[in-house]
Amino acid sequence: MKQSQLFTKAGKEAPKEEKSINAQLLMRAGFVDKLMAGVYTYLPLGFRVLKKIENIIREEMNDIGGQEVLMPALHPKENWQKTNRWQYEEMFKLKSRAGKDFSLGWTHEEIITPLVKKFVRSYKDLPFSVYQIQDKFRDELRSKSGLLRGVEFAMKDLYSFHSDEADLGRYYEKVKKSYFKIFARCGLKKETFLTLASGGSFSQYSHEFQTVTPFGEDEIYLCPKCKIAVNKEIIEKEKHQCPQCQNKKLEIKKAIEVGNIFKLKEKFSQPFNLTFVDAKGKSKPVQMGCYGIGLGRLMGAVVEIWHDKKGIIWPKAVAPFDVHLLSLGEGKEIKNAAKKIYQDYRQEEKIEVLYDDRAGVTAGEKFAEADLIGIPLRAVVSARTLKEEAVEIKKRNEEKVKLVKIKNLKREILKLLNE
Amino acid sequence: MKQSQLFTKAGKEAPKEEKSINAQLLMRAGFVDKLMAGVYTYLPLGFRVLKKIENIIREEMNDIGGQEVLMPALHPKENWQKTNRWQYEEMFKLKSRAGKDFSLGWTHEEIITPLVKKFVRSYKDLPFSVYQIQDKFRDELRSKSGLLRGVEFAMKDLYSFHSDEADLGRYYEKVKKSYFKIFARCGLKKETFLTLASGGSFSQYSHEFQTVTPFGEDEIYLCPKCKIAVNKEIIEKEKHQCPQCQNKKLEIKKAIEVGNIFKLKEKFSQPFNLTFVDAKGKSKPVQMGCYGIGLGRLMGAVVEIWHDKKGIIWPKAVAPFDVHLLSLGEGKEIKNAAKKIYQDYRQEEKIEVLYDDRAGVTAGEKFAEADLIGIPLRAVVSARTLKEEAVEIKKRNEEKVKLVKIKNLKREILKLLNE
Repeated sequence: MKQSQLFTKAGKEAPKEEKSINAQLLMRAGFVDKLMAGVYTYLPLGFRVLKKIENIIREEMNDIGGQEVLMPALHPKENWQKTNRWQYEEMFKLKSRAGKDFSLGWTHEEIITPLVKKFVRSYKDLPFSVYQIQDKFRDELRSKSGLLRGVEFAMKDLYSFHSDEADLGRYYEKVKKSYFKIFARCGLKKETFLTLASGGSFSQYSHEFQTVTPFGEDEIYLCPKCKIAVNKEIIEKEKHQCPQCQNKKLEIKKAIEVGNIFKLKEKFSQPFNLTFVDAKGKSKPVQMGCYGIGLGRLMGAVVEIWHDKKGIIWPKAVAPFDVHLLSLGEGKEIKNAAKKIYQDYRQEEKIEVLYDDRAGVTAGEKFAEADLIGIPLRAVVSARTLKEEAVEIKKRNEEKVKLVKIKNLKREILKLLNE
Repeated sequence: MKQSQLFTKAGKEAPKEEKSINAQLLMRAGFVDKLMAGVYTYLPLGFRVLKKIENIIREEMNDIGGQEVLMPALHPKENWQKTNRWQYEEMFKLKSRAGKDFSLGWTHEEIITPLVKKFVRSYKDLPFSVYQIQDKFRDELRSKSGLLRGVEFAMKDLYSFHSDEADLGRYYEKVKKSYFKIFARCGLKKETFLTLASGGSFSQYSHEFQTVTPFGEDEIYLCPKCKIAVNKEIIEKEKHQCPQCQNKKLEIKKAIEVGNIFKLKEKFSQPFNLTFVDAKGKSKPVQMGCYGIGLGRLMGAVVEIWHDKKGIIWPKAVAPFDVHLLSLGEGKEIKNAAKKIYQDYRQEEKIEVLYDDRAGVTAGEKFAEADLIGIPLRAVVSARTLKEEAVEIKKRNEEKVKLVKIKNLKREILKLLNE
């Protein structure tokens, strides 16, 4: 894409009330715009990142057999009364002109359970899992962490259905692995830890995936040996020791919850009477699990981890583009050379280029914006590089620059992107 | 995908209150589920169709330079007060716990205009266009037409920004062409007509794209010579004649509005003070256009047009799968042959296969479901076809069947799909 055609501009200041690093950088660099507290528009650059995260999650969900659906945001009151959750205070409620009561979904157990009931009869219909990537709403009183705590936010929610707890347990472990893959692909492998959390009334424990960063809203107790953690809610109950190795020297870390998984068991099957007939002809409740990842929150977490003073440093898999091509100077020769590179690459699906073709913008401004936007590779075409029939390449996360002959450019870029 | 693993099942009856063909067929065939009036869940088959429609629209919007964003559904009251549309009765309104007033967006002029204002300074920043594919909400009193009239519905809304009316006019014509391409790709070419409609207070006329079907909610006056139409609102004003050739013999047709385009001109630039500085240094209001397509409605319209007594007949481009592979009979040889074909095709991106591998389902039931679901090609493997080392192929929209040798199958399928 040509930067001159992008309707947004980088370099704006973030509103003063935005204290979080992710919101400041994402707004300054033109990835998101704030409509009101906890409610953001994804601008073209941010939308590209969101779609990359969405596709990573979709691939991994499909890989563990998830069937994708799309459920509504608008829910009827009756469904939430069945589970005694209509009074949940963070749920937005509204009335239609005809007087009907609705809520806006912040989760979808109340919708998926009666839906699935229409199709499940026998043990032969089990197990299966269903997911969606869909907008949720939550009436947060304080949304001060940018994309980390949204009032409106995209979420992937997966629900699984089983004939017994053992099968639920096996799938639960599968999802755990899948989640680690997702976070690793998004660039959060080193910083993300499985964390024991309270299971509520229906299960002893659930698990969170916590990404350690100084700016996290949560606090976790991490065992440096086992690389697993315990969250604040249950650290007393666990006697301040690692549940795996009983190590008492846990490290207290700030962290962001990027995902969570629950064994719901019969919590929702019971009120909706979701049952199946087993091989012996006996009716039993279906065992359920649920598994969430907030897409915006994940994007915010990536920025909290991957940035420096100058701006964002996107991991390749979620970067809006692979290469930021900058033409410096107004000469026709420079423009033609840069344009030719850009056009060559437009055909190349493996390399996505943002081409800063803007006239009347200084080299200093272009460099500063490239650092702020944070595309993994910067490629500069100038009078100086063209003298060598070359382009100057720099990785966003390294200081060193390198002159690469134009004829070798594609090979070199592919090499660097795959490092 | 293996049909045995699909958590939904075809063949259920649609609720009695569903009178529309699209809702009846889509529900019976397992594409959508009704949560309440005007609010549907897209089940795995329906979700695939929705994504295909979405991708067609996205490709065509990108092709006319649209930049994709994602705006929120939750809107602050202030924005709607600026345009005196806060009282719009079909808009859902709600309050946060903190007492803030929100509405749920049924369109996004009130959001995009102030957003764009943050970036537009000079005529050099114009023109551009921005779109999103996003869920809208509308408090409909009577939602009785299935996907044709949703309370919650996915919509593509494109907004364009120009320095003068002539440029807006040129882009408007470009969008017209793009819309016809979209409807043609979705299989509605022959039935869809440009229709003059009231422009409201800000423009003489707007245009609708109306798909003619006996079950449409609208009525249009079609000129059989010019192939353009006039809608009911303005037929008096147009003196019951074709605005192009003055033909008075217009045909009255029932139709579904599948898209609409408006020249907004300054209607929203004025209240939000969206201006730019022209080449002579003079401040002027930005000229705007807006262009909508409802995705669910388009899907519903496709079904209204493409069905017969037995079920849906999906046009290839929006079909959930390309081939419905049926194995008939319980023999091991049959299963292995069908499985091998299915596995071969899983690798082949150009051919998507739904494999009806279910045991204990009669041939009659499988045939009936295949007709109901409406995938363009049916491929049957049975003891009889295997005797000839062949598969029996049938197009959903033709009666004749054809035996094709397994070794020629891929070529034949690709040929038939591209006919």
